[in-house]
Parts: sequence; structure tokens; C-alpha cells
Amino acid sequence: MKIAQIAPLAERVPPKKYGGTERVVSALTEELVKRGHEVTLFASGDSQTSAKLESVYPRALREAKVKDIYGTHDLTMLHMGLAYELQDEFDIIHDHLAPLSLPVANLATTPVVATMHGPFTSENRKLFEMLRGAHIATVSQSQLYPLPNINHAGTVHHGLPMKSYPFSAEHEGYLLYVGRISIEKGVHYALDVAQVLDMRLILAAKVEPSDYAYFREYIEPRLSDRIRWVGEVDEAERNRLMSKARAFLHPVVFREPFGLTLIEAMACGCPVIAFNRGAIPEIIKTGVTGYVVEDVEGMIDALSNIDSIDRAACRAHALEHFSVEKMTDGYEAIYKKLVGGGEDVT
Amino acid sequence: MKIAQIAPLAERVPPKKYGGTERVVSALTEELVKRGHEVTLFASGDSQTSAKLESVYPRALREAKVKDIYGTHDLTMLHMGLAYELQDEFDIIHDHLAPLSLPVANLATTPVVATMHGPFTSENRKLFEMLRGAHIATVSQSQLYPLPNINHAGTVHHGLPMKSYPFSAEHEGYLLYVGRISIEKGVHYALDVAQVLDMRLILAAKVEPSDYAYFREYIEPRLSDRIRWVGEVDEAERNRLMSKARAFLHPVVFREPFGLTLIEAMACGCPVIAFNRGAIPEIIKTGVTGYVVEDVEGMIDALSNIDSIDRAACRAHALEHFSVEKMTDGYEAIYKKLVGGGEDVT
Repeated sequence: MKIAQIAPLAERVPPKKYGGTERVVSALTEELVKRGHEVTLFASGDSQTSAKLESVYPRALREAKVKDIYGTHDLTMLHMGLAYELQDEFDIIHDHLAPLSLPVANLATTPVVATMHGPFTSENRKLFEMLRGAHIATVSQSQLYPLPNINHAGTVHHGLPMKSYPFSAEHEGYLLYVGRISIEKGVHYALDVAQVLDMRLILAAKVEPSDYAYFREYIEPRLSDRIRWVGEVDEAERNRLMSKARAFLHPVVFREPFGLTLIEAMACGCPVIAFNRGAIPEIIKTGVTGYVVEDVEGMIDALSNIDSIDRAACRAHALEHFSVEKMTDGYEAIYKKLVGGGEDVT
Repeated sequence: MKIAQIAPLAERVPPKKYGGTERVVSALTEELVKRGHEVTLFASGDSQTSAKLESVYPRALREAKVKDIYGTHDLTMLHMGLAYELQDEFDIIHDHLAPLSLPVANLATTPVVATMHGPFTSENRKLFEMLRGAHIATVSQSQLYPLPNINHAGTVHHGLPMKSYPFSAEHEGYLLYVGRISIEKGVHYALDVAQVLDMRLILAAKVEPSDYAYFREYIEPRLSDRIRWVGEVDEAERNRLMSKARAFLHPVVFREPFGLTLIEAMACGCPVIAFNRGAIPEIIKTGVTGYVVEDVEGMIDALSNIDSIDRAACRAHALEHFSVEKMTDGYEAIYKKLVGGGEDVT
């Protein structure tokens, strides 16, 4: 099948550090190529792929320090516009820019699957309900919940090349937070937990300019020898931190559509404790790979049981449910349905 | 002809206060309806028009205090997406959102004229050069200068219902700046001029959050009884200020694509002194309706001659060259060419 993958331009594919969407697009693209598809990846020029790379700019927009890397930067509009201009060269377009791309996807004559990587909100739901040309893939069941009336192609959980993550049966005692320091990620709750229990906590996380005020007010004054912020880390360092952490904390306070760091932590053998928001219960098997809790008190309680979690079971769960192969099976089935090849997926 | 006009959602059409694009779209739309065309205006729900109004939101985005009113707000994407979804209902789409809309305009099957209201830059020029589906209208000759290679439909100077502007042969001695307080508008140069000459200056201008720092550092400390900031004013107050000003100062420092306040000031009989940037020389007839100058010194020199300018000549120039009728003639000729009706415009 001739497949276009349209990644965001914000980060390289795969990202050097932070960048969940680009990480997933990379995994999917490589697996599709491996399966014999003819894949064109529209992404930043420094991307690394075995697909054909089409690019309007040599670097990822965040690295190039352009403003508005998630919005309507001219380069993003050009990137998107050129991908759709080439629509006749593809059997299917898989778009990872929604909702930004819904107006143009709506006029496309080649079938479009658009994965919604962010949350549906009261603000964007009308866009999905009214511009129905693209077939929308959701990344969890819970993500779909508030939006019954979209042109839904199916739910495909994110997957990553889980086998390549390093496993450790032993931990070094610290708690770990990985991701982005922002109020909606609830990072200050992780600090509350660590302070109450006097446990070590490592924050491996970037801070965006829009989150500086939060960082300065709620995080920075509480950093210490026990609560350390190590900034944004690369993949190797993140994996090492995950494989040696006693538990991974994810006190997210918004309706998280998925939780990519959770499956990565589990693949490394690290139990996960997360707030019960959005897709979290679809990812964690409570009592087996960690705990789904309601609040800071629940997180503190869960930590008293954390050593009963079998680290090998965490990895097994990640490999079984969140592999790149399983995700690719899911998208291949959608592609085949849309290009008229029936639903009999191999 | 069945014509879609797609206005920005930032301001009402016509705008209550600031909003050049919305002002022009309103004037054009009303004149097209008057000439018997079937016009659908895509704009905020509080817009006032004799065309058919299509709207995704009851208020202008700035009034609703949403973030990112000029970018990819979900409502803007829905507004744009729905207008293009309805493309088959129109003979021609006249789009005022470019470059934001170029990706979707590029896939449209109904002919699209997109007026570029902003400046072409090294950042957006590739978008215009590569996504060539829309026919681009420029608003001045100079605007086109850096971009030889776009799909150019023609240049149409902005026009407004000039006859309805109040004329005054007498002035009250003050200098006037109208528009937006921002560094690229060079407002501090107007303050320099007023201070050197110890003349009164009135600033009737809005301040956007992104310009607060500039306002606080370069404008606010210099305000006084002689240099007054009266905030953003409505149309009636702006017209009164223009008709009674001794001269209108426009010390713009970027390549201004047009200069709508200049034609409004001239229509009120007010001479205009502006920096020689972009379209300015196409608007001012030096020595007759004001002066095109190079810098603050030039502006100071020009003011020594300002009483030799005939205020009636300013108005006559505006009425002859920048009427809504002349602008509408220009766009009608483009529409007719694109829908195959030939170039014989009435």
C-alpha cells in the first residue's frame, strides 16, 4: 500500500528527547516499511527513517526555536499543504496533525485517517463533528467518550518497540516523573508525595516557556538533594532512569488521551502509579503493573504496597498490549477497510 | 454571481473599533450585494451585513477573549473548514484568511481568490510559491515586490465608502496617530516628533497583550497633557479625531502592505505624513495630500510645510483612488476572469 504519514514538525521523527506523537509516528512508520508498504514520511528534515522522507525544513521547529511550533507556523502550513497536494500519489493518508488539518483533510479525495493525539474538548468537538471527511482514529476508548458523533475509524492504542527497552528486576529506590513540567500534568502532586514519605524523586522533564511561571512558583522552590530536577533527558538516559526507579508517578489532572511514558516505564519493569483520568485505567493493570489512584492520598497509600508489584509482570503487560506490532495491526486494518481491501487483516 | 466572502473571526464585520481586514470585507460585501450578486459572508455571528451571514460563533473572537485569535483557534478552523465544505454552492470563493487557508484553498475545486492582507515575508513566501491553487490578490504593487513567483490574480487597492467620512476644512492643531501601539508601527517616533516640536499628539490606539512590554517601556512614561493616549476608539470618534487633526502621523517601520488609516484620514481632509515603507508611496501624493518621508527628521521637516496642504485635495484624492466602488470593480474583474466570464467588466 502507498501510505503517507504526516508527522508534526515540532520535533524530529523520532524525537531526540520529548515528543510523544513523533515517537509513535516513527515506530509505526518503521514497522509499516518492514511489512513491505511504500511509506512516505512528511516530517522535519533531520528525521531518521527507512521510509521516503519529504521535508520542507531541515530541522525540527523546536530546535530551530521558532514561535508557535504547535500552531500555524508558516512552515507547518506548507508542510501540511504539500502533503495534501501530493494526495494522488497515495492510497491512504495517515495524518497526525488533527485538528489543525481537518479543513484540508475534509476536501481530500484520497482517504484520510487522522489520529487524534490530544484530548477532545468542548472547544474542538464541533470541528470533529462537522468536518467529517477524515476518518478519526482515537488512541484510547476513554478518549472517545465525550464525542459520540464523529466519523470514527476505530481505537488503536499507542505501541512502541517495547522489546528494545532495557529491563531491570532491581530498583534503586527513587520515585520518577518523566515528561513535561506543567500544571495539567500535576507535577506538584508528585512533590507532595515525595515530601510526605521523604522519598527521593527525580524529575526528568522539560519546561516550556508557557510553563515557566508554574515551574518558578510550584516546583523550583521545592527542589533539593532529595527532589532533583535533571531537565529534559534523551532516550538512553530516560530508559536508564525508568529501569532503576522504584515507581513511576503520573499525577495527571486532565483527561489524558493516552500515557506514553507509562507504557515505556512498564516495559523497563517500573511499576506505575497514576491518577484516574482519561485513558489511565486502560493502560495500568491495578495490583499487577501498578495502581490507578484518585489523589495524592491514594498515591501515598499505593506506595506502601509498591514492592508487591512484580517488575517482570510490568514488562510482560507492556509487551503484550502496547507493542508496535499490535498498533500497526490496528492501523493496517483501518487502512485496508478504507481503501476497499476488506477487513481481512493478516 | 454566487460569491462566498470568508472574513477573519477576530473582529466583527464591520469591526466595532480596530480591524482593517474586517472593514474592507464589509465594504466589499455590501457593494457586491448592491450590484446584485448573491453573497454569503462567513464571519462572526454579530456581523452586520445585507449578505447571507454564515457563522460558527455568535461573537467576534477578540470580544470573546479567546486566545490566539489570529491563529489556529478551533473556531477559526471550523469557520474555514465549513466555508470550504460548502464550495459547490459558490461560483467563486473570496478568502481573506491567507496564508492560514492556503492548504485547504489548494484542494478546492471552486475557484478561490485569496487577498493577502499581511506582508509577504521570507517565512511565508514559500507557502505562496508552492501552494498555488488559490489566486492571490495583492493590495498594493509594492506588496508584490519580493514575490515574483506566486499565482497572482492582480492588485486591488483597498477601498472604503469614502463619501460617508466627515470632512473638515479646519483643524484643531493636534497631531494624530490611529491604529495599534506596537514596535513595528513605530509609535515612539510619533512621540519623538511631538516632543521636538512641542505639539499636541493624540494616540487613538489599542494595545494587544503582546505589545504591553513595548507600551510600558516606550510609550506610557512619555504620556502627558500634550501627548495623550485615548485608547481604542469607535468609528465615529476616530472620524471626528481625523477630521480635526492638523496632520496624521504614520511612522511605520515594516513593509506595510497598505495603510487603511491613511485613506480614511485623507477622506476626512487630514494630511498624512508617513515613513517611506511598502505601499506608502502608492497612497500619499507627496506635496498634495501629505508627505512621504524617510525618518523622524523628515517628519519634523514635513510638519513645517503642513499648512500648505489643501485639506479638500486630500479628500478628493481619497474619493478618486480609494473608493469602495473602485475596489469592487477590481475584484469583480478578477472574479469574472476566474469563472470564465471573460475580462469585459462593466
